[in-house]
Parts: sequence; C-alpha cells; structure tokens
Amino acid sequence: MKKITKDIISNSGIEIYQDKDLYSFNLDTILLYNFVNPVKKGTIVDLCSGNGVIGLSLASKTDANIKLIEIQKELAQLAVESIKLNNLENRVEMINIDLKNAQKYINHDSVDLITCNPPYFKIDDNTKTKNNEVLSKARHELLTNLDDICNMAKILLKENKHFYMVHRPERLMEIFSSMNKHNLQPKKIQFVRSYDDKDANLVLIDAIKTVKSASLKIIPDLVIYDENGNLTSKAEKIING
Amino acid sequence: MKKITKDIISNSGIEIYQDKDLYSFNLDTILLYNFVNPVKKGTIVDLCSGNGVIGLSLASKTDANIKLIEIQKELAQLAVESIKLNNLENRVEMINIDLKNAQKYINHDSVDLITCNPPYFKIDDNTKTKNNEVLSKARHELLTNLDDICNMAKILLKENKHFYMVHRPERLMEIFSSMNKHNLQPKKIQFVRSYDDKDANLVLIDAIKTVKSASLKIIPDLVIYDENGNLTSKAEKIING
Repeated sequence: MKKITKDIISNSGIEIYQDKDLYSFNLDTILLYNFVNPVKKGTIVDLCSGNGVIGLSLASKTDANIKLIEIQKELAQLAVESIKLNNLENRVEMINIDLKNAQKYINHDSVDLITCNPPYFKIDDNTKTKNNEVLSKARHELLTNLDDICNMAKILLKENKHFYMVHRPERLMEIFSSMNKHNLQPKKIQFVRSYDDKDANLVLIDAIKTVKSASLKIIPDLVIYDENGNLTSKAEKIING
Repeated sequence: MKKITKDIISNSGIEIYQDKDLYSFNLDTILLYNFVNPVKKGTIVDLCSGNGVIGLSLASKTDANIKLIEIQKELAQLAVESIKLNNLENRVEMINIDLKNAQKYINHDSVDLITCNPPYFKIDDNTKTKNNEVLSKARHELLTNLDDICNMAKILLKENKHFYMVHRPERLMEIFSSMNKHNLQPKKIQFVRSYDDKDANLVLIDAIKTVKSASLKIIPDLVIYDENGNLTSKAEKIING
C-alpha cells in the first residue's frame, strides 16, 4: 500500500485514504461537497462514491446515516479503510455493488438526499481503458451511465428530496432529458469556469424528485481564477476552507 | 397614431415604429439581435415578430430574405409601416398569421435561420389580460407556446441550421425538453444577469436542427451592470453600438 496517501478534504476535517495511481479527489469533489445543503438526519446516499470522499466529507456536516455505493472493489476498499480511520462505522457504510442493484440494500422512496460525482464521459471507439482500468471506469461510462444514475436517484429518493450532481456542461441537454424522464426537476444550477471570460467547464445541479414542474434558478457562476491567475476569493474560501 | 414613436435599434441603423402603449422593444430584443450570427443569404424567419424589431434589424446584417410572423394585427401593422419606412419591401415581408399556419406560406425544410423572442410566461389563474390585451398576448402564452414554437422551428428549418431564442432561465428545463422533442439541439448558451452576483434573468440559446446529439458550450455570461450600477463595457457595446 505504499502509494496510498492520507488527505484531508478542504474544511471538512475528514481524512481520506487515496491511491493516487487509481483515482484521487479533485476540485470537482470539493465543489460538490460545498454545493450540497445536507439534511441534518435521515439517510444520505452517495452514488459512484469512488474512495468515498463526498460521502465521508458530508459526515462532518450532518448526523444522517450515509451509504456509499461504488462498483469498483479497489476504490470501495479504500473507502472502508477511511470509514474506520474516521471512526464513522456507526453511520457511514460502503456498499460495494453496481448501483443498479441498490434496491437490494436500500428501500425505494426512503432516502433524504443523494449526491453523485459520476463518470463524465461517454464511451466511444476512442475510449482507452488499457493503461489504468480503475481510473477509466471512474471517468467513462463503462459500468454505469447518466440514465441509470437518474433512474436510481428517482427510485431511492423520497418525494421532494434533493439530488445533487456535478457534471460537464456539454452534456446538459442529456442531463436535463434524463432528469425529466425520471421526475427529477433542476431547482438550482451553478456553472463553474476557470476564468470569467472562458466557457464553463463544470456544472453543479441541485434537483428535486417531483412530478410537478419546478422553477429553475441559475445562481452566480463560480469563477476559480482571477485575471492574474490567482484564486478568486470565492474559490479560495471553498478550496482552502 | 399620436402615441407612435420612431426608434432606432442599437447599432443596426434600422428605424422601427413603436406604439409604447402596445409593446415596445427592450433589452431582450437588443441582446437577441446581437447574439444572432446571421446567414448572409437565403431565408430568415422571425417567429413572434411583434412590431418586427428583430427581423427588421437583422436586415442590416444580411442580404437574406426575411419573413416576419406575427399573429396580432396591431403589431403586424406597425411592422408593415416600418418595412416601408426602411425601404425593405423587396426582402422583408410581414405574414400576419398564427405561426401554426406558417406552412401555408413557407415550405418545410426551406429556412436558413430562425429567430424568436417569444411570450415568456405561462398562463395561469393569475394571468391578467384586461388592462392591455396586446401586451398580455406578447408576454404570456395565450396565443402560442414553447412547444408550438419549437415544433414550427423544426418544420421550417433546413437540417443543421440555427434557431436562436431568448427566454427566461427558470423555464430552461421545459425549453430543453421541447427542443429535444423537436430535434433542436442547443449548441451555445449565454446567461444574462443584471449584476455579477445575481441569478440570471435571461438566457440566449443557439440551437441547431439535427437528429444527432450536439456538444453544448456555456459561453461567458453577459453582465449588464457593474457594482456601481454603470453599464459594463460588454453591455455598453451591445446597447449603444
């Protein structure tokens, strides 16, 4: 385990074991962690958990029970170790399964909040998986996809509860289509840009499960760097706590 | 006709007759005019033309033939007068009909670009139409709606040609759903905010007609005022030419 490091998530105080050769948390994780307005109790599910970084760091913000779902054994094992490291075995659980089978472990319409930092990229003829299979599966839709994720979010969530996801803006049309199909209505969206004058490179989505239509707010952008290449004060606060 | 004024659209040089008691152009119109990248020839159609302001101002940017479609007689008549005023009878035409009947005048799959500044608001029990019926119909979906507009855009446009629309961000989910249903794929989106730190109040959409999926860019926001309440340089350039 010599490549494994222990890292602290932003201002959560939670330590995470990471194998930097497999997959390690990045800005996206920290942004999603900060975007989520967690329920104080009940059940939180994190889909596509990876090494558990989102789910574990949310433990610092809530007393809810947190269930992490991850299909890749190598990443799930790291999460299990991090749960022990933080003495969170009593309320954080790793379920090492394909999210399609989540209903074997979690009742439908029983969850109070779902988070997801999914694989961003569709698979095509150019998808290379040879060099680092674990990383490829975390980044590409090899083992799951947007529609499976939205479908499971709808099944597990209670009515009117929130589903938070970080994704790529170029797939927003698909994201909306899939959410619409599965009774998830975006309520709040934030675009993230490296610089003020660049196209957005991430989108943070707060949706609720409802059969009604919902009014969407596009809140102010999060711009990471100012024109001199320094962190903006907003980004500094989120990243360095 | 004493309430009718003659106004010039931003940097187009085109003069428009307006009856300020009915409906007059506003920032949205100018933003859409600036957002459109017009084809140089062929046919442009402007749906929900009102007094013709978008279609007429585009005449300054293109040699294309421009067909304006407007259901309200009072507004269509102003557009006819403005066409004459600018000596554009040879290539700008007002068709005073319900856009549902546009195929009686324009062939399907024949149009090179479509623009639309539609009624933004759904009708509900609180929709008041008594005080100013023409304005109410221009602002609320009393005579047409998003789905009728997207359907007609799909019917009229040639494959891979652009449909530009300005709308309200809170309806983005419905806009995407309707576009998706009608084979319109958003390619480029710009959000407009009054101030940098406020929720977006308008969205400019550039979509193409295609059966394929398309990659979406969220380009830099257009912020209208700086923190001192002065026009930003970007807004100043668009509004004052």
